Amino acid sequence: MATTELGRLLRLAGDLRIDFIDSPALRGNPLGDPSVRPLAIYTPPGFDPGGSKRYPVLYVLHGYTGDVAALVAARPWETNVVQWADRAIASGEMAPALLAVVDGFTRLGGSQYLDSIHNGAYGTYTVRDVVGHVDATYPTIAHEGGRAVLGKSSGGFGSLYLSMTYPGVFGAFASHSGDTGFRSSFGPSFALAQRTLEARGGDVAAFVAAFEAKHKRSQPEYATIEMLGYAAAYSPRAAEAFAFDLPFDAYTGELREDVFARWLSFDPVELCLTKRAELARLRLRYVDCGRRDEYALDLGARRFVNRVREFGLEVRHEEFDDDHRNVGYRYAISLPALVAVLEVG
Amino acid sequence: MATTELGRLLRLAGDLRIDFIDSPALRGNPLGDPSVRPLAIYTPPGFDPGGSKRYPVLYVLHGYTGDVAALVAARPWETNVVQWADRAIASGEMAPALLAVVDGFTRLGGSQYLDSIHNGAYGTYTVRDVVGHVDATYPTIAHEGGRAVLGKSSGGFGSLYLSMTYPGVFGAFASHSGDTGFRSSFGPSFALAQRTLEARGGDVAAFVAAFEAKHKRSQPEYATIEMLGYAAAYSPRAAEAFAFDLPFDAYTGELREDVFARWLSFDPVELCLTKRAELARLRLRYVDCGRRDEYALDLGARRFVNRVREFGLEVRHEEFDDDHRNVGYRYAISLPALVAVLEVG
Amino acid sequence: MATTELGRLLRLAGDLRIDFIDSPALRGNPLGDPSVRPLAIYTPPGFDPGGSKRYPVLYVLHGYTGDVAALVAARPWETNVVQWADRAIASGEMAPALLAVVDGFTRLGGSQYLDSIHNGAYGTYTVRDVVGHVDATYPTIAHEGGRAVLGKSSGGFGSLYLSMTYPGVFGAFASHSGDTGFRSSFGPSFALAQRTLEARGGDVAAFVAAFEAKHKRSQPEYATIEMLGYAAAYSPRAAEAFAFDLPFDAYTGELREDVFARWLSFDPVELCLTKRAELARLRLRYVDCGRRDEYALDLGARRFVNRVREFGLEVRHEEFDDDHRNVGYRYAISLPALVAVLEVG
Amino acid sequence: MATTELGRLLRLAGDLRIDFIDSPALRGNPLGDPSVRPLAIYTPPGFDPGGSKRYPVLYVLHGYTGDVAALVAARPWETNVVQWADRAIASGEMAPALLAVVDGFTRLGGSQYLDSIHNGAYGTYTVRDVVGHVDATYPTIAHEGGRAVLGKSSGGFGSLYLSMTYPGVFGAFASHSGDTGFRSSFGPSFALAQRTLEARGGDVAAFVAAFEAKHKRSQPEYATIEMLGYAAAYSPRAAEAFAFDLPFDAYTGELREDVFARWLSFDPVELCLTKRAELARLRLRYVDCGRRDEYALDLGARRFVNRVREFGLEVRHEEFDDDHRNVGYRYAISLPALVAVLEVG
Repeated sequence: MATTELGRLLRLAGDLRIDFIDSPALRGNPLGDPSVRPLAIYTPPGFDPGGSKRYPVLYVLHGYTGDVAALVAARPWETNVVQWADRAIASGEMAPALLAVVDGFTRLGGSQYLDSIHNGAYGTYTVRDVVGHVDATYPTIAHEGGRAVLGKSSGGFGSLYLSMTYPGVFGAFASHSGDTGFRSSFGPSFALAQRTLEARGGDVAAFVAAFEAKHKRSQPEYATIEMLGYAAAYSPRAAEAFAFDLPFDAYTGELREDVFARWLSFDPVELCLTKRAELARLRLRYVDCGRRDEYALDLGARRFVNRVREFGLEVRHEEFDDDHRNVGYRYAISLPALVAVLEVG
Repeated sequence: MATTELGRLLRLAGDLRIDFIDSPALRGNPLGDPSVRPLAIYTPPGFDPGGSKRYPVLYVLHGYTGDVAALVAARPWETNVVQWADRAIASGEMAPALLAVVDGFTRLGGSQYLDSIHNGAYGTYTVRDVVGHVDATYPTIAHEGGRAVLGKSSGGFGSLYLSMTYPGVFGAFASHSGDTGFRSSFGPSFALAQRTLEARGGDVAAFVAAFEAKHKRSQPEYATIEMLGYAAAYSPRAAEAFAFDLPFDAYTGELREDVFARWLSFDPVELCLTKRAELARLRLRYVDCGRRDEYALDLGARRFVNRVREFGLEVRHEEFDDDHRNVGYRYAISLPALVAVLEVG
Repeated sequence: MATTELGRLLRLAGDLRIDFIDSPALRGNPLGDPSVRPLAIYTPPGFDPGGSKRYPVLYVLHGYTGDVAALVAARPWETNVVQWADRAIASGEMAPALLAVVDGFTRLGGSQYLDSIHNGAYGTYTVRDVVGHVDATYPTIAHEGGRAVLGKSSGGFGSLYLSMTYPGVFGAFASHSGDTGFRSSFGPSFALAQRTLEARGGDVAAFVAAFEAKHKRSQPEYATIEMLGYAAAYSPRAAEAFAFDLPFDAYTGELREDVFARWLSFDPVELCLTKRAELARLRLRYVDCGRRDEYALDLGARRFVNRVREFGLEVRHEEFDDDHRNVGYRYAISLPALVAVLEVG
Repeated sequence: MATTELGRLLRLAGDLRIDFIDSPALRGNPLGDPSVRPLAIYTPPGFDPGGSKRYPVLYVLHGYTGDVAALVAARPWETNVVQWADRAIASGEMAPALLAVVDGFTRLGGSQYLDSIHNGAYGTYTVRDVVGHVDATYPTIAHEGGRAVLGKSSGGFGSLYLSMTYPGVFGAFASHSGDTGFRSSFGPSFALAQRTLEARGGDVAAFVAAFEAKHKRSQPEYATIEMLGYAAAYSPRAAEAFAFDLPFDAYTGELREDVFARWLSFDPVELCLTKRAELARLRLRYVDCGRRDEYALDLGARRFVNRVREFGLEVRHEEFDDDHRNVGYRYAISLPALVAVLEVG
């Protein structure tokens, strides 16, 4: 029986609490986002913080325009990732595990969980400050064999990126509709962003200020803030707010190949080419995507999976008949699959 | 500075906690919904539970398919009703007040905050059990001069209904895009429900079971569950699950005037005709609606306002250029307006 | 082989010509619409205007916002009613027949094919002037046993209306997604019209002028002109442009039951109650509608069919899985069914 | 006063006839499309075929999935290109001119007006067979100073392509929302086509057959036929039905740069680089596009315009607040502008 308010709101058999951690990696970041971040910790039924049993930990990364609060929120008739885990553990389908839901939000909508001179060191924050806090605070299996990382959309990207960039931290990943195949996915958003920014005289700061001040925002406005956020992560120019390069010409929208090359260096489809060793040490590589994904991420996933398989490595790759939105029900598949390969204390 | 996890997630100057109250009114309800319900309590900055200051209370009612957890959830770039109140108080625009966010959810998506032999006594639950708990637990101004009720959509309906049906409980109401003018608002949904139910062989229980089991639901399915929920509230037949009458013919979709007359008896436009005294004792009657409301509730609001004004009573009536969704920014207007007419301790 | 330009554009085995007839019934109509109207005449392969063979005639009525030119236009990958007939005759599935496509357009988008003091005598025009011209000009079977009437949407309405109002003219009808069940179908459009007209200060003439001058029109604007057109047909006030009553209150959108009663007197569901004899003499009564019709005309059709069957009369009633748009493929069913019951010379 | 049926349906002051021309260039084309094509000829008021006055000719090219019949069709409240010309001439705003509306349809939806071993020689057909017929049949100013070419979407592309590829034929062009900037415009359609074709086992012929047989087609199906049509025009492999290369990998959707390079050689943005002389001899270069174009053709237009201006050549370039659909009102601007630079007899 849940004891915390959040745990009770979610009607959990286990429990859910929020830690607030002050990340050295995020202090003084140029965008002015807080270094103190919420970290949601799910503990399974029967969890005894002082007992001898040690637990594997699943690190959950939210998507773009998401944050911890939104990801753990309960909604009638919906099941969030914490509730999926709780059900799977309560039913015995999955061994008991902790979940740690990481906050990677920025003023521009998200950090992509990577170190950027513009945004702050969100990669370091995740693998050092967050993982360090969890291992220091909870009875965890404190090595890669006891940790997995997963997420949807930009959270799926983060799972792929962190697994390949920080070997030895996580033993498995699951990427749901993760950002992959950048050459295919951004075109329409670049056009929307070009127009939206031009309408603001090309003034990024003015656009962001107006965006934040609005009660309601249009789809082109959301696409624009998202492209700004990716530029802040993939092509920063300096440690100063809005000092980043956009990968398209301000007037013609043409791809600026020099800038986009920096984006592509983060594309899992490209990044993986030099990451055979990092991928090989993982116990599970899980990738899925809906075949109607609006950003063609199903095709990016196929490219990534093909390349990893060319390394002679196995990937669990699933496709399903759905689009990019509200595919949280896929956690019911990935969560048990991840725990099944981890050490379980 | 917020001290609870929820309060910190919402970055409140005040604080937010969840009480769980076991409502006698809801025990043993035929639908099998829990009698223990979350009640979110917002307390302003400087709140001292043991001090001598007493506070007015704003009772907030969520809309259809909503619940307490969803209403108090934080979302990036969005502001919920609790955050609007917190801001208004922190800025000095509004005197300190408590908020009590009431849970009126049922398996069919909502109770309309009224006593139904089918759903349970949600009206009594709200005005007796919830209000009773708040006055017993917090330093409130424990009479109608210190209480207001407000909400959006079905929550707006609840505000109107409870104000007119339980005089002496609340001293003011604010209805945002509240359900009014039933003759205009339900037509398209009745057609959708007719078809959806026919496709299930007219078996309401089978439809509800399938609805609950789905990962994703279509717009016609949502419209259908909503019509079932209203029938459960407005035209119940017995204290047994799904024992209610639908106001349309199962084959032709034609309005069943006998059943619909029961619905109309709850329509604020009709109900108000006999409620002059109840309306007259209120300190503020606030009604607003967007002029692009998909359910034509702007027109229902005009009819209601006209009738109340014909009583010689004032109504604050506002219209704005928006549709039915995401109009929470209107709380920035209604919350201070309500507190301004209440006793403030 | 087609010889006319239109016939060749449509790649007909038969042929298509346009007659322009000057209708006494339409002369001097208050709206200022022309009395000279195009009438499209389809003749089958082998047609000999001077021969002894006489042909049955199918009178085709277009829908609201349509006209003769639009109905006979060819579009790649689409098949219009003339092409469906031509195919069915060429394949031997249907006996040779003429088609006469009637123009019922007005400045407000359509006449509903009925006599209105406001619009002009479109009923008389159709059954007297058009039918008279066809019988005078072509080798037809010049009595009801050789004539049927059919159409889609408002053309379906016209087919029902004319069959019931002018007995002895047509021997059969087919109504595809025809306007029926007025109580269910107009609600959302009334709300849109209320708002659109209010935004023009309630000035109908100003709205119409602006509508005509626009390059592009919004969906609410189309809904508004349509409601004006129906008012001009169903509830005219005088023989003067825009002298008609709208069936809703200009401020609250509430149904004006006195005006709407005039509309209902044209609703086939109501009209049929006194038309048993007129319906009984028909050789075929054909009604169909898609089960996702946006105006719930499928439900109106069921009501109409139920009532006619209560008279002890047969109706061919079909439903299909589609919405209101682009259902012209249903002509492939109705055209042969109509000709099968007519005298074929 | 119009004398032809089409002219009267369109209520023209001038007149409209359809010639059917048998094009040697199209005979025996692999797709099996007819070599006999309709050609719509507009003649202005006062036109005397046997008189001494000679007229300039505007060649009008329809868009993808369009054809002559669809382009000249009349629709209530709409104005087609022929009607725009007729109005402008009748009002004196534009000198009398002929219009010749060219048919470039194929089984795959369009030819892009260029010679393809797969589709047939639609470029030659247009500049030799059509222009030859017009000059042989009508009193035209039979050289480039008396001819312009214009169109929308793929018709805009055709105008650009033919002007640059066949110098000396046309003296001016107008491209409305023409296909330009191929790198930006096709991404989402490639993804849709990949999925649609995979669902048919990659069998193009089977997809086309199913497409043709359907009563209604989905948006992904339309996007797929369009990509096939472009491949048939830009990257044909042999003179055999469906023998063309698609510019994306059948499984991953990745761009096949070798194939796409062939497409790019037709992109006006690339093609113009070697066409300075051809562009320089033109009397007017007119380009416009809506700033909400769904295919980002506004951005392609900017790139094309920039390059032509870098040649030191003037371009009339306009942008407007609209999307890709129903922008025919732009003809009211381009038609008089074209005629103003042509010789007018």
